[in-house]
Amino acid sequence: MSNDRVYNFSAGPSMLPLSVLEKAASELTNYRGSGQSVMEMSHRSKLYLSIFEEIKSDFKRIFKVPDTHEILFMQGGATFQFGAVPLNLIGKTGKADYAITGNFSKIACKEATKYGEINVAADSGDRNHTYIPSQSELKLSPDASYFHYCANNTIYGTEWKYVPETNGVPIVCDMSSNIMSKPVDVSKYGIIYAGVQKNMAPAGMAVVVIDKSLAGNELPITPKIMSYKIAIDKDSMDNTPPCYTIYMLGLVLKWLDEQGGTEGMAKIKTKKAGILYDVLDSSRLFIPIADKEARSDMNVTFRTGSDELDAKFVKEATEAGFVNIKGHRLAGGMRASIYNAMPMEGVEKLADFMRAFEKNN
Amino acid sequence: MSNDRVYNFSAGPSMLPLSVLEKAASELTNYRGSGQSVMEMSHRSKLYLSIFEEIKSDFKRIFKVPDTHEILFMQGGATFQFGAVPLNLIGKTGKADYAITGNFSKIACKEATKYGEINVAADSGDRNHTYIPSQSELKLSPDASYFHYCANNTIYGTEWKYVPETNGVPIVCDMSSNIMSKPVDVSKYGIIYAGVQKNMAPAGMAVVVIDKSLAGNELPITPKIMSYKIAIDKDSMDNTPPCYTIYMLGLVLKWLDEQGGTEGMAKIKTKKAGILYDVLDSSRLFIPIADKEARSDMNVTFRTGSDELDAKFVKEATEAGFVNIKGHRLAGGMRASIYNAMPMEGVEKLADFMRAFEKNN
Repeated sequence: MSNDRVYNFSAGPSMLPLSVLEKAASELTNYRGSGQSVMEMSHRSKLYLSIFEEIKSDFKRIFKVPDTHEILFMQGGATFQFGAVPLNLIGKTGKADYAITGNFSKIACKEATKYGEINVAADSGDRNHTYIPSQSELKLSPDASYFHYCANNTIYGTEWKYVPETNGVPIVCDMSSNIMSKPVDVSKYGIIYAGVQKNMAPAGMAVVVIDKSLAGNELPITPKIMSYKIAIDKDSMDNTPPCYTIYMLGLVLKWLDEQGGTEGMAKIKTKKAGILYDVLDSSRLFIPIADKEARSDMNVTFRTGSDELDAKFVKEATEAGFVNIKGHRLAGGMRASIYNAMPMEGVEKLADFMRAFEKNN
Repeated sequence: MSNDRVYNFSAGPSMLPLSVLEKAASELTNYRGSGQSVMEMSHRSKLYLSIFEEIKSDFKRIFKVPDTHEILFMQGGATFQFGAVPLNLIGKTGKADYAITGNFSKIACKEATKYGEINVAADSGDRNHTYIPSQSELKLSPDASYFHYCANNTIYGTEWKYVPETNGVPIVCDMSSNIMSKPVDVSKYGIIYAGVQKNMAPAGMAVVVIDKSLAGNELPITPKIMSYKIAIDKDSMDNTPPCYTIYMLGLVLKWLDEQGGTEGMAKIKTKKAGILYDVLDSSRLFIPIADKEARSDMNVTFRTGSDELDAKFVKEATEAGFVNIKGHRLAGGMRASIYNAMPMEGVEKLADFMRAFEKNN
């Protein structure tokens, strides 16, 4: 890879496209002749507002956001949304449904119990979150204020392949680790939120795409910074937004356009994941962690069955320039996070490395 | 100024030292041979943790934080803290005291009323926040869980010159717009918080310096991302922190060291503010907005008495490269925000410009 950069398989924060970083570096001290860095611009200035509007417009176009929905930039990542979602939505009936398919959906569910009555619609913890429940396995409540699930489970390497049918109950989806990797029918969702640090920008923000009709029913105890209504009314600027992180998202959106948008990325990510799953499926050494039908195209999890060999693999991979490939302690083994910015050649070289490791061990 | 940069008098986000921006640009695509941008680093990686620890250590040394206090990096700026402070602290007695000396302390006060009984200890709104109440004017409650004030009022250009005596009631202070401009006796405060976007880093974070003994009493409805206890226990990493914003703070701290720390900055800021207040005090045209004894060394507010002349001043100043100098609509007139990163020559040139404008109008 050019510029002596490593292949960074981190689950997040994670790689950004090199061209995006180079663009950011080139205009860091002086943005396009303005005499200022974007980091220094007043968020109320005409110049920054023009940047902001272009980014919102690009996001709306690329993610195909219908006019019924608003795009919000909020600080605090997904964890902030774990609180904001129930505070804003649960007041309708006092109840909500959660599917637990991994660590973060479990944390989101626990957070919601502070604010209402929570029904666990499914919990894949019985097999350490190696599968995704089917539609028929979801125990949904007709009077839930919303149904919450996490579209891609970073730690275990599983991904929902369908959008649940909830019979009118608004769907809230945490897409932190697979947003912008494929086209999404936004109209099916009440709220989509995503921490930006995996597929969109440096850490420090979440993007929230919300059906505007859901806002305005927050519990009276909702901190104002968590109110979707205020964020919508003030266009994400009731307080100072994370201006530079938004700008970085903007550069990534331009790069996404060059890749063919979400349709283009879907082809690329399917090919990248396929390369690694082919290695796993034809291996006598490596064992995939997730069930085949639930496999994530963003996080490929695997192990050797031996803690010593796992450690040896991680050590030798790191030395070879494949960094942050150790699995999360909850899943063990290894994890190759191959988000949008991971180049094809990074995946191909890792596949070569895995085959060579298998030959030698 | 080098690099064709403008003098940016924005109230925040605001200027960063050019050397800091140049350093950031130089290591943006590849941090010191690591093959990664800081934007891409896993917050759990050894490399990022070593950066993080050095920054905390530099902050502790430069801001003279005693061992009784912890340093937290939290997303959401001061507005987030407006909710977090009462949620974490008001449970002790159910009551808190607030001094209202400007727009943001008013918003902080209003937010706190969601969570307990609020006593307004003082309100300078009777004279449009042009003064700071004296100690004897503060109506403090002996059973308040805490006393909250805002050390510098960005919009009106006033600054507290003393630390209130509260007879044991913990003091919570919003130092968003004057932190790191002078030495602070941190031991006098229960909590100091500051949005970073004025004197410390790009927008997207607040630094919280908290007496650890105050944590652990949050209301049960506190979103986990707002819990000081969790933030302390997890060293600001219960969720992914804004890694790059923290890194930028680190570069600013190194620059602060070069300026002689907070003692050095105090001399510089006193001199800078003095230059502009001397212009105002010797002017037949410009009228200072804040009372003399309450003047802020960070935000110099003034007007001409004529809306037309104010507009003309702003227009001509902007054309001359002094940008964002229009006053906030709540105070009117002009405002020159001269935070730490505003160079002395920017202030000197503005003073020259003001004198020339006076001569010609």
